[in-house]
Amino acid sequence: EHVSTVSAAMIGKGNFRHFMEKEIYDQPEAIAHTLHTVIDPGTGVATLPYPLEDAESVSKITILAAGTSFYSGLTARYWLESIGGVACEVDLASEFRDRKAVLPKGGVVIAVSQSGESLDTLMALRHGKSLGQKVLALVNVPESTIARESDGVLLTRAGPEFGVASTKAFTAQLTAFLGLAIALGQARGHIDKDEVLRLVTALEGVPGRVAEALKDTSAYHAIAHELSRAKDVLYLGRGLSYPIALEGALKLKEITYVHAEGYAAGEMKHGPIALIDEHVPVVIVAPSDGWFDKTASNMAEVRARGGRVILLTDAHGAKELGGSADHLVVLPDVAPEVAPILYSIPVQLLAYLAAVEKGTDADQPRNLAKSVTVE
Amino acid sequence: EHVSTVSAAMIGKGNFRHFMEKEIYDQPEAIAHTLHTVIDPGTGVATLPYPLEDAESVSKITILAAGTSFYSGLTARYWLESIGGVACEVDLASEFRDRKAVLPKGGVVIAVSQSGESLDTLMALRHGKSLGQKVLALVNVPESTIARESDGVLLTRAGPEFGVASTKAFTAQLTAFLGLAIALGQARGHIDKDEVLRLVTALEGVPGRVAEALKDTSAYHAIAHELSRAKDVLYLGRGLSYPIALEGALKLKEITYVHAEGYAAGEMKHGPIALIDEHVPVVIVAPSDGWFDKTASNMAEVRARGGRVILLTDAHGAKELGGSADHLVVLPDVAPEVAPILYSIPVQLLAYLAAVEKGTDADQPRNLAKSVTVE
Repeated sequence: EHVSTVSAAMIGKGNFRHFMEKEIYDQPEAIAHTLHTVIDPGTGVATLPYPLEDAESVSKITILAAGTSFYSGLTARYWLESIGGVACEVDLASEFRDRKAVLPKGGVVIAVSQSGESLDTLMALRHGKSLGQKVLALVNVPESTIARESDGVLLTRAGPEFGVASTKAFTAQLTAFLGLAIALGQARGHIDKDEVLRLVTALEGVPGRVAEALKDTSAYHAIAHELSRAKDVLYLGRGLSYPIALEGALKLKEITYVHAEGYAAGEMKHGPIALIDEHVPVVIVAPSDGWFDKTASNMAEVRARGGRVILLTDAHGAKELGGSADHLVVLPDVAPEVAPILYSIPVQLLAYLAAVEKGTDADQPRNLAKSVTVE
Repeated sequence: EHVSTVSAAMIGKGNFRHFMEKEIYDQPEAIAHTLHTVIDPGTGVATLPYPLEDAESVSKITILAAGTSFYSGLTARYWLESIGGVACEVDLASEFRDRKAVLPKGGVVIAVSQSGESLDTLMALRHGKSLGQKVLALVNVPESTIARESDGVLLTRAGPEFGVASTKAFTAQLTAFLGLAIALGQARGHIDKDEVLRLVTALEGVPGRVAEALKDTSAYHAIAHELSRAKDVLYLGRGLSYPIALEGALKLKEITYVHAEGYAAGEMKHGPIALIDEHVPVVIVAPSDGWFDKTASNMAEVRARGGRVILLTDAHGAKELGGSADHLVVLPDVAPEVAPILYSIPVQLLAYLAAVEKGTDADQPRNLAKSVTVE
């Protein structure tokens, strides 16, 4: 019974205004619980679920998902390749299910869905099976159809999620994926013991950093006010921050109906920069990492065209670029590999607080269902 | 000298108002010329350029590109897998160049760039080489840097393109990719002789169908007027029409500054549907193909939320759904495999005519450069 794996406090709205707000604040606990489904809290050893146990024989991982889960898959691709040393591709479930994909022998499909009931993801899973792939489910509901139809199950321990806009299920998925990447990298000899220790330590520290980030949200209110009144918003990021930019835009779009769009920062010059003028806030996701300098130069281009810059970064990034941002959110320092989990928090909070400002219903946005069980 | 391979009429603006308009009308010729770089006009035989000549040894194709060229790559993936029988992945050049991708031995990178000078694509090409991949350039300029640094070159014969928003280079890329997929499928024994003949015949017919589509544009003016006044526009498509929806949105965004966004139709329910109300025109790319019925049900969802539907389809599709669209563009009948090339025309025309309506400069949109040679 999955509910028993989370504390009672994770069920119900408590003193929060919306389930979404509560679920944002549930994240330190959701991440910590999920972390320990992959990494043994005592020994720090990461273990692999079936059908990934025989790690060296895995030729390729194909992640299939929709919506927010798709963005956790996009993030996972970076980890699975650079840390796990496994070839990885991510596809939209609705596209994959009707596509004649060419997949190698020994490949594993990971079907990602909070509810475990997304119809497109279920159909994609079946299609993957018909192409000879083993299937691992990454779901939040163990008795779900996707879990039942998969060869193995990796559970996120986020607790029940009621807000239509997914928050804690997303960061729990990210956590499970990073744990998986570490375990694969270790088992395949792609990373050494010291690197495993460094990554496990960084991941173990995430619940604390997330709690810290949630403690003081005073910087968010003025930004949320601006976003709630914008017609268009762009979200930019590179590398591990690119899927977080996509997710940030999706969150804002879902619950405030503001037309937000996420872009790989390097793609901005190939089109979206034409949209930018003084009425377009641009949210830039930029922890201090290997991509930071390039993102900084994209930020300069945005400013040169009059765009309003909302910069999400750390102390080092704030020192470098804070002076030229219109708004600044400073996050705790973390290892670059875990930054996507931490930087999910500000994009969720901004969307949520913008919805509150605007008066839209964050928990039940128009036109949307929590679990998409139709085509 | 590449200019000599196209007729003199393809250079200069002639009697057209903008280069972009002229380049849209150049497409029957650009497609026909490009077609014959891959398919022998006499024998109908498709030939493979180096390093794809030894087709059976190609383990995987990785397409690297940016902007519009990235969307031609996304289209190509469907063709290369379903027709060519080769595993294919597409990545943004700006992301790939800084990513630790895991690529197999015997893989080939295809670097796609109209100018052959896109800096990110050039750097991605070099990164692909460093990962042991052979490189094929798909460019419109034979003496370009990307062509010079590649192991082999496949030329689009679109003639010089001056409009910042790419049009004929895009359909020429699509044509080259489809020719390549046919040649690969034939060489690898993935498709039989009859299928090769059917596909080659369909491809040979495209310049004629495109010319037909360009003959009467009277249906476009009212739609372009509506798009030019919209704040937000969505473009939806499935399968082979999904990248065309992305490209249509990019074109509109680039030259009219209207915030258009393309989506896989199946993803709409996972977020963007929240944006839809009676002020949001939704352009639906839906030839009669295997995806048509599912796209039709997405169209019904758009209508149920009050969205305005602009349907791009063929005679059969118009008969099925025309009555419930607010605007209808009927394209000539073609085999589903070549539809993306033909359906590029209406999305280009709509963007161009919307820019004319709005009075923005289609040839030199604000903030954009023709060839992006910075990071």
